[in-house]
Amino acid sequence: MKNLNSRALKLEHDRLFLLDQQALPHGELWLDATDPAAMIAAIKALKVRGAPLIGVAAALSLACFSQKQTDPAALRSLALQLRQSRPTAVNLMWAIDRLLPLCAEPERLQAEAVAIFEEDQRLCAQMGEMGAELIAEGDHILTHCNSGGLATAGIGTALGVIYTAWAAGKKLHVYVDETRPLLQGARLTAWELSKWGIPYTLICDNMAAMLMRQGAIHKVFLGADRVALNGDFANKIGTYNVAVNAFYHHLPFYPVAPYSTLDFQAADGSAIPIEQRGAEEVRGLVQHTGALSWAPHEAPVYNPAFDVTPVELVTALVTDRGIFKREELQAGVLKQLSPG
Amino acid sequence: MKNLNSRALKLEHDRLFLLDQQALPHGELWLDATDPAAMIAAIKALKVRGAPLIGVAAALSLACFSQKQTDPAALRSLALQLRQSRPTAVNLMWAIDRLLPLCAEPERLQAEAVAIFEEDQRLCAQMGEMGAELIAEGDHILTHCNSGGLATAGIGTALGVIYTAWAAGKKLHVYVDETRPLLQGARLTAWELSKWGIPYTLICDNMAAMLMRQGAIHKVFLGADRVALNGDFANKIGTYNVAVNAFYHHLPFYPVAPYSTLDFQAADGSAIPIEQRGAEEVRGLVQHTGALSWAPHEAPVYNPAFDVTPVELVTALVTDRGIFKREELQAGVLKQLSPG
Repeated sequence: MKNLNSRALKLEHDRLFLLDQQALPHGELWLDATDPAAMIAAIKALKVRGAPLIGVAAALSLACFSQKQTDPAALRSLALQLRQSRPTAVNLMWAIDRLLPLCAEPERLQAEAVAIFEEDQRLCAQMGEMGAELIAEGDHILTHCNSGGLATAGIGTALGVIYTAWAAGKKLHVYVDETRPLLQGARLTAWELSKWGIPYTLICDNMAAMLMRQGAIHKVFLGADRVALNGDFANKIGTYNVAVNAFYHHLPFYPVAPYSTLDFQAADGSAIPIEQRGAEEVRGLVQHTGALSWAPHEAPVYNPAFDVTPVELVTALVTDRGIFKREELQAGVLKQLSPG
Repeated sequence: MKNLNSRALKLEHDRLFLLDQQALPHGELWLDATDPAAMIAAIKALKVRGAPLIGVAAALSLACFSQKQTDPAALRSLALQLRQSRPTAVNLMWAIDRLLPLCAEPERLQAEAVAIFEEDQRLCAQMGEMGAELIAEGDHILTHCNSGGLATAGIGTALGVIYTAWAAGKKLHVYVDETRPLLQGARLTAWELSKWGIPYTLICDNMAAMLMRQGAIHKVFLGADRVALNGDFANKIGTYNVAVNAFYHHLPFYPVAPYSTLDFQAADGSAIPIEQRGAEEVRGLVQHTGALSWAPHEAPVYNPAFDVTPVELVTALVTDRGIFKREELQAGVLKQLSPG
């Protein structure tokens, strides 16, 4: 396969490398994930994360495997394992479902995996151009979790929109929710924004409401892990909290996602499965270098990885195919994007 | 002075001891804070915290000092240093202002400091009895930060209300916000609830909104660091975020505070000074055993220790003097409690 290169994923001489996102920002470690078992472990451990990037990474993992193993049954078996490695981000299912019919034709499967990578880069650029129109000179933008070059093969979804506006010369400032429990905002978004030189301020998740009341935040842009047909969407836990606050303070609230994040089987948000994760992530911190606990060791914990934001709190959904307002989403516009 | 004993503050043979709240829950270390410099350092470092407890601790610190130093000027100087050690909790100013006129009469000053301790215990019991009437069998209650026996000399303010209802036999469940950045919920409230045997679930601050939407939270009880005359109040950062969510989901929202937390000089919340704290608390974790950073080392940070919740989001304020509904607060009922 041809060499591929992005911020967090590389294909070099048919070997697949991941930037270990659990080690960021203090360590920049590239892991060899050519072996599919290593890829599945990396997805489960969030060493590679972000809905679009998980899909791309799983596709390339299957493609690498198909260079050594050409038995269609073995390929299909691995495809299904990859498909189940995390439950909420639908891009993973979308990418694997594109490759499943090609398990008997390894070369076509490999070409399709490369196409998925390259398509994701184009989708990011398209969302960036579309969404940047919504950003005005001087805007202060809140974002949650990470939706940048660490979450996609390109410039990102929501963070790609912000990057595109900034690269076009618009002055802006980003408030970054740290995003407990896994701190993707503090660790990853802060790192990406500082790499780009975009001015930002890191805050705890519970501080944005106060900043909204003070008029210090003008708009919200964030990603999505799965969008239902009516415009409800799942995203990192805490997104719904941001949505309620944006609504209460009359601020525009924009999820940004490519068409590959749409779930044409989900009529609304209630159909989206929510991954539950371990108690130790809330009792303390699970870091690259080990775990740390600050709560009582036996503290009972609730730890959903995602929540669902209903379409009534969405100002508009930014996609590569266009920007869809709340009323359009509620009228069922997303059904028209269905491939089937 | 007589010996005094509470969960986090002890006076034994005229020596003053603090339970180090930065070491909880994994270490139960008692610090000798008889020396006023040690007390001021402990207040600044949040080894002793909670608006009522800070006031009581500062009063007893001044009283201990007056047993060795009887020069009124030296006592007044220390009183003013203690008064300025943290800016937002008004109980500190209230307690010191009760002692300042007694600096020339050390024995009366000592008796008054003991009276402040004992009064705080009574105030907690009164708030508990009043507020427990608002809790129904089977309630699921959200709380934020710590407002229990670690925040007062008694059973607490909001947590005291919960404790009183539970001790009266009401079944209930508490959702505990971890309360970033300093994690008073995860470290202190979880510890207190497990000591009492009250069932609870620890969550990240950004998860309560989702639980409210699911109907898993019925009511909110939390403390206050300063209440303005119109019912606006300052409390731990994140309280305003909780208030907006409770309002949006039509849930009762009850701050609980003794009369000593009322600021009769503050017409509304805009008169309350908000303490800003260091960036390292948001970039990572400042623990008893050292600091840990997970954000980029130079990440710009905003870190207010408190926020202000406007009275329009308050269902009722629970005090030792009675429960005051939003409309009563807005009509100025708190002015009638003024001692002047």
